[in-house]
Amino acid sequence: MDLRQGLSKRAELLNVELAKFLENGEPKTLYDAARHLPLAGGKRLRPILAMITCEALGGNVKKLLPITIALELIHNFTLVHDDIMDKSNLRRNLPTVHIKYDEPTAIIAGDLLFAKAFESMHNLVETPSNFKRLNYGLLECVREICEGQQLDMEFEKRKMVTEQEYIEMIRKKTAFFFQFAAESGAILANASDKEIDAMSTYGLSIGLAFQIQDDYLDMSSDKETLGKDIGNDIRNGKKTLIAVRSLSTAQGEDKELLKRVFGNRNATDHEIKKVYDLFWKKKSIDYAKQTAVNYSLRAKESLSVIPENSAKQILIDLAEYTIKREK
Amino acid sequence: MDLRQGLSKRAELLNVELAKFLENGEPKTLYDAARHLPLAGGKRLRPILAMITCEALGGNVKKLLPITIALELIHNFTLVHDDIMDKSNLRRNLPTVHIKYDEPTAIIAGDLLFAKAFESMHNLVETPSNFKRLNYGLLECVREICEGQQLDMEFEKRKMVTEQEYIEMIRKKTAFFFQFAAESGAILANASDKEIDAMSTYGLSIGLAFQIQDDYLDMSSDKETLGKDIGNDIRNGKKTLIAVRSLSTAQGEDKELLKRVFGNRNATDHEIKKVYDLFWKKKSIDYAKQTAVNYSLRAKESLSVIPENSAKQILIDLAEYTIKREK
Repeated sequence: MDLRQGLSKRAELLNVELAKFLENGEPKTLYDAARHLPLAGGKRLRPILAMITCEALGGNVKKLLPITIALELIHNFTLVHDDIMDKSNLRRNLPTVHIKYDEPTAIIAGDLLFAKAFESMHNLVETPSNFKRLNYGLLECVREICEGQQLDMEFEKRKMVTEQEYIEMIRKKTAFFFQFAAESGAILANASDKEIDAMSTYGLSIGLAFQIQDDYLDMSSDKETLGKDIGNDIRNGKKTLIAVRSLSTAQGEDKELLKRVFGNRNATDHEIKKVYDLFWKKKSIDYAKQTAVNYSLRAKESLSVIPENSAKQILIDLAEYTIKREK
Repeated sequence: MDLRQGLSKRAELLNVELAKFLENGEPKTLYDAARHLPLAGGKRLRPILAMITCEALGGNVKKLLPITIALELIHNFTLVHDDIMDKSNLRRNLPTVHIKYDEPTAIIAGDLLFAKAFESMHNLVETPSNFKRLNYGLLECVREICEGQQLDMEFEKRKMVTEQEYIEMIRKKTAFFFQFAAESGAILANASDKEIDAMSTYGLSIGLAFQIQDDYLDMSSDKETLGKDIGNDIRNGKKTLIAVRSLSTAQGEDKELLKRVFGNRNATDHEIKKVYDLFWKKKSIDYAKQTAVNYSLRAKESLSVIPENSAKQILIDLAEYTIKREK
């Protein structure tokens, strides 16, 4: 079975359970708004990650389902609220919740998804100590995501952000949640501490690789046409690893150019093009790609302590897919 | 000790624990935004209610503190988000979170308070089954508040709302949470099912009385000057018990007046005054007051099954205060 099939088989399992869990409630508009994004598809990476680590360590995926639903609902709750903050109109090729409904409904729908995620945790059939550990772990994820999202917004307003600060921001915003997803599968499989730690490193590493690859794709995908998003990110001073690297290494004229254009809402298209060319010239884009590759390698290395089986092979393939994917 | 002292002594206990629990975190702006409202005071009614029912049934209030913090944080999280939805500028005589900071920060600060509330639950020293019961109960509160808030917004757009629908809306939005607060104190005190049920009825009843009294105070407090808020509520078609009662009983010319003016954003001050006079003439304002009184009586009746002690006396006084208070 190739990776794509392996992933979609597990996504399908999640989709069925998720649709059941999100059956209608009243008031209908609120429940429709809450279901809009989670039932619109998506990669389902976090639930899939938990399923595969669980399988790789001999666990029963059926037991894990309540937590996979919780992971996906927390992810979706943060997206619904992020889209309001970012004033985004589209997600998964559909209007965002605050566009399709309205902003107040979208705020409440996000809050409801947050609550429903933790309701799902109560369907776990687990020892009290494991239940508490997992429940608290998921709360920590929400806290880290909140902190990471706030840092991301604050970084846009800052002149300088170090690479270390950037990594810490994406660790909070994205990678901690991957880390927890991978850990949770191992915990449910009653794995040893050593194995749980390995899954933790694996999840963290592919989370970091995944987010940096996103930055890379955004910047390299429409190289020829220099799409609107690239211009917006440069005008908003968005601190991707690419921007952070350029800001810290540029000298002389290059440094002046960045000072003048990066984060300048009124920058001309010509100036944007010059910054974009600088990103390539300074090899910042290649640097980001290489950093993602390194994290992907670290993810694969962490797998050495777990037994050989078909699920482990999917984890290896997934680490490679994270940096090879083109969307 | 009079009621005021009894309440403020318990509020002070909560305030100290809450301030400790919300010690600073990073990023600082986010944690400042999250602390802004909970540390700005407030009646602390929900935590106090839990404390007094716990005491009345012989429980240890110290054991209960994590849940009182959780109750107050959930209440504050909903206020932070409600203020964004309602575009309110002031709360507790301070600028609201989205005004003092910005809307994205306020959305995240609310989410963080939600997560922190459930983190606090993990500090409970309780049996696993009581922990799960209380944790799930608090999740149900969030769900009910979300549903109630959505209903409240939807009712504004509707022509007609029955009294039954109105009561169901405030049950969800306000009273269910009071009910849970009162129950949780009894559960922590290891009370009998009969006593827990009695506290449940007590909490629900004073929750309903409290919300209806709010409607009454909003409408009757500045009778002479006919304040801006009354005009806004009439122009927005806000479905208070007073409005609901008038809409269902008005006939002929009165009915025509309501049809023309109630919910009409362009209504003149003269028209607003006529609707306001109609509310008095139809005795809808007195009706709301009487309904609050009835719920307060029901609250007091529910106390018959619990032992006589000083905490029980506070519960009696609290039921009376709910309908006597003037703000």
